[in-house]
Amino acid sequence: MNTRRKQNHAPLLAQVVSTGDEVLTGAIVDSNSAYIAAALLETGLHVTRHTTVGDDAPRLRDLLVEIGDHTDIAVVTGGLGPTVDDITAQAAADAAGVKLIENQEALLSIQDFFNRFPRPMSLSDGKQAMLPENAIPVINRSGTAPGFKMTIGKCTLYFLPGVPREMKTMMTEMVIPAIKAEHVTTDYQQHYREKQFSLFGLPEAEVNQRLKEPSKRFGDVKLGMLARFPVIIVKLFAFGSDVEAVDRGIEKAAGHVREALDKWIFSDTCDSLESVVGALLKEKRVTVAVAESCTGGLISDRLTNVAGSSDYFLMSAVTYANEAKTAILHVSGGTIETHGAVSEETAREMAEGIRKISGADYGIATSGIAGPTGGTDEKPVGTICVAIAGPNRIVSKRRVLPFRDRIANKEIFAHMALDMLRRELSA
Amino acid sequence: MNTRRKQNHAPLLAQVVSTGDEVLTGAIVDSNSAYIAAALLETGLHVTRHTTVGDDAPRLRDLLVEIGDHTDIAVVTGGLGPTVDDITAQAAADAAGVKLIENQEALLSIQDFFNRFPRPMSLSDGKQAMLPENAIPVINRSGTAPGFKMTIGKCTLYFLPGVPREMKTMMTEMVIPAIKAEHVTTDYQQHYREKQFSLFGLPEAEVNQRLKEPSKRFGDVKLGMLARFPVIIVKLFAFGSDVEAVDRGIEKAAGHVREALDKWIFSDTCDSLESVVGALLKEKRVTVAVAESCTGGLISDRLTNVAGSSDYFLMSAVTYANEAKTAILHVSGGTIETHGAVSEETAREMAEGIRKISGADYGIATSGIAGPTGGTDEKPVGTICVAIAGPNRIVSKRRVLPFRDRIANKEIFAHMALDMLRRELSA
Repeated sequence: MNTRRKQNHAPLLAQVVSTGDEVLTGAIVDSNSAYIAAALLETGLHVTRHTTVGDDAPRLRDLLVEIGDHTDIAVVTGGLGPTVDDITAQAAADAAGVKLIENQEALLSIQDFFNRFPRPMSLSDGKQAMLPENAIPVINRSGTAPGFKMTIGKCTLYFLPGVPREMKTMMTEMVIPAIKAEHVTTDYQQHYREKQFSLFGLPEAEVNQRLKEPSKRFGDVKLGMLARFPVIIVKLFAFGSDVEAVDRGIEKAAGHVREALDKWIFSDTCDSLESVVGALLKEKRVTVAVAESCTGGLISDRLTNVAGSSDYFLMSAVTYANEAKTAILHVSGGTIETHGAVSEETAREMAEGIRKISGADYGIATSGIAGPTGGTDEKPVGTICVAIAGPNRIVSKRRVLPFRDRIANKEIFAHMALDMLRRELSA
Repeated sequence: MNTRRKQNHAPLLAQVVSTGDEVLTGAIVDSNSAYIAAALLETGLHVTRHTTVGDDAPRLRDLLVEIGDHTDIAVVTGGLGPTVDDITAQAAADAAGVKLIENQEALLSIQDFFNRFPRPMSLSDGKQAMLPENAIPVINRSGTAPGFKMTIGKCTLYFLPGVPREMKTMMTEMVIPAIKAEHVTTDYQQHYREKQFSLFGLPEAEVNQRLKEPSKRFGDVKLGMLARFPVIIVKLFAFGSDVEAVDRGIEKAAGHVREALDKWIFSDTCDSLESVVGALLKEKRVTVAVAESCTGGLISDRLTNVAGSSDYFLMSAVTYANEAKTAILHVSGGTIETHGAVSEETAREMAEGIRKISGADYGIATSGIAGPTGGTDEKPVGTICVAIAGPNRIVSKRRVLPFRDRIANKEIFAHMALDMLRRELSA
């Protein structure tokens, strides 16, 4: 058991390892490491590195030796199953310079698992009980492969299966409590706090510029920016042993962010734009209907992703063809002829049309050119016209965005329309 | 330029690095590394490791020095932007023991990018032109941060921005062609082949069972399963120096997969279900319109994600409220009263209604309960009714799915409707 660090105040160092050819070759994206890193961070460990290697015993052994030299705690996933590709236990034994032996507790846990199922246990299932001789099993109640805990060099390592569901249960129920009990003491506790702001409508460089003014001092609070196109997330996070000082630091930095980014912030609680709009519609007891052209249904898809949206969302008409715009939404043929289907004038008539036929308080409409083809010199790909028809007025705007990608344009067009409604409802 | 290995027959070793506190802390899942690893593998490199470190210049420098000692080629993403957190260029310079200098070509490319936009270039944008003195810029046409290429130790490293869209363009257009030209020779080539089958409608355990029958022997071909809810991808992959043997192995295994999974396979070329449906509509020169209730616009959003969909997609009506179903789609009030809004009868009238008012050859309709609330004993959350009205007949079905999650249900409902149309068009 590693308790060296219990007395002093430097945070314990941790690493995360995933193994398996399917991750190494890019056949699947490694989501386990993000989950494990977040869980270790919340216990107060300082995560320094994630590493992925394939089903390759010598390379995994070398990595485990490196980790044993440099790290206090590590969590390793994958390669514990019954097949010949499952080489993690052997690599761990080699790294520690010990043998594999049949672990009785692990064997019993595997037998116990099979007793609950109609399928008999096979010889290859039994292979999973062969663990390094200094290993202590970590029982897996939802799968056949037991995990284990062992020491390599100066590091305590937890080996878990790669199946996300099994890994998560074992992390929550066994690994995190064990780390807290054995490594993290109450007299030294590293507190972690974060706060996120979600923004739409400012380019990343402009957000940067506004946050970098000399008046924006963040002290020990770190600032991260995350592009979740077309939304930008500004994230403040801080660590420290004095929880009140950490909270004060975050609150002060949050004030600076609010001042700098003001009306572009649509949430400071990680809500989606459609949830924020939905909450405003509910709060004001008003309803909405949508007339979409270039966004193709994305706006209504987003609005109806929110549970309870049937309280305020009445209907949507996706009118790609001009005939549908006139027949369903009563857009005048003359408007389309004079100004074109992609025009503020047409968008305004669409918004007013859907508002009338649905009986909604607000009508939203989009018309534009998502691309990749269909642009002209006057109306290039990326042109978007948005209109909101409300009880008292109709507002509209026209923009030309630099993107050529159809799906990117649909995303940003839909966000523009929802954000315009958010501002109308907040005005 | 690293050409040492051109003469001998061992594959070149490659590593993938991602940087950034947001990845290290688990705030976001690293999907860049999977993409890059797959691309390197396809050029014949042997990828040995992925590593993630935070925005921490000394730790990144140490990692780059290690990589310089052990690897031939590496691709590093993230940390090239204009903020103080962007420390990659400095860490790379430190690892190589060189200085950062203003690179004129990089500066021009940044200026060039800003010339295309109304926003002026700021001082912090200019910071992105400060590159290690032995670096060669890799131009980024879709963002402000240039990438660069340089040597550390025995390794050639490519540094790219972390924004997936920018990274992917630069990998495809510049990095992969450069690696092929400079490092990979035709006299030694490790061949990699893969084949993917996209499936909808069978549970994962059933797919497993069908592929595990004793008759399904895959030899040296590896088999992976990937759940991209609600689609399952079955992936076959193999390596070898004899390209014909690799191709034969994949083809044989592909035959087994086709036989086992048959009509559930909608693509063996990685196409989305909506692309496959779109191609069938185009091929048969027929049009489609959609009437959505519980799917809330998702079906039309998906259909219109496909470039050129305006050729066959006419319109969609998202009718949440019963009044909209009767007013717009002419569903009879009696049908809704007798069978309920969530019924095959209502779905059939919706499909027929949208087909008539749009003049489309095919009408698709969905009605169901996506949840999380709104279910009854008779019609629980997860109930879905789908109907397709075509030129010759109307087909419909009702299913009850086990999911409670609104967004998961919308996804699977939309896939059911699109897959039903695919089967009608293929019949």
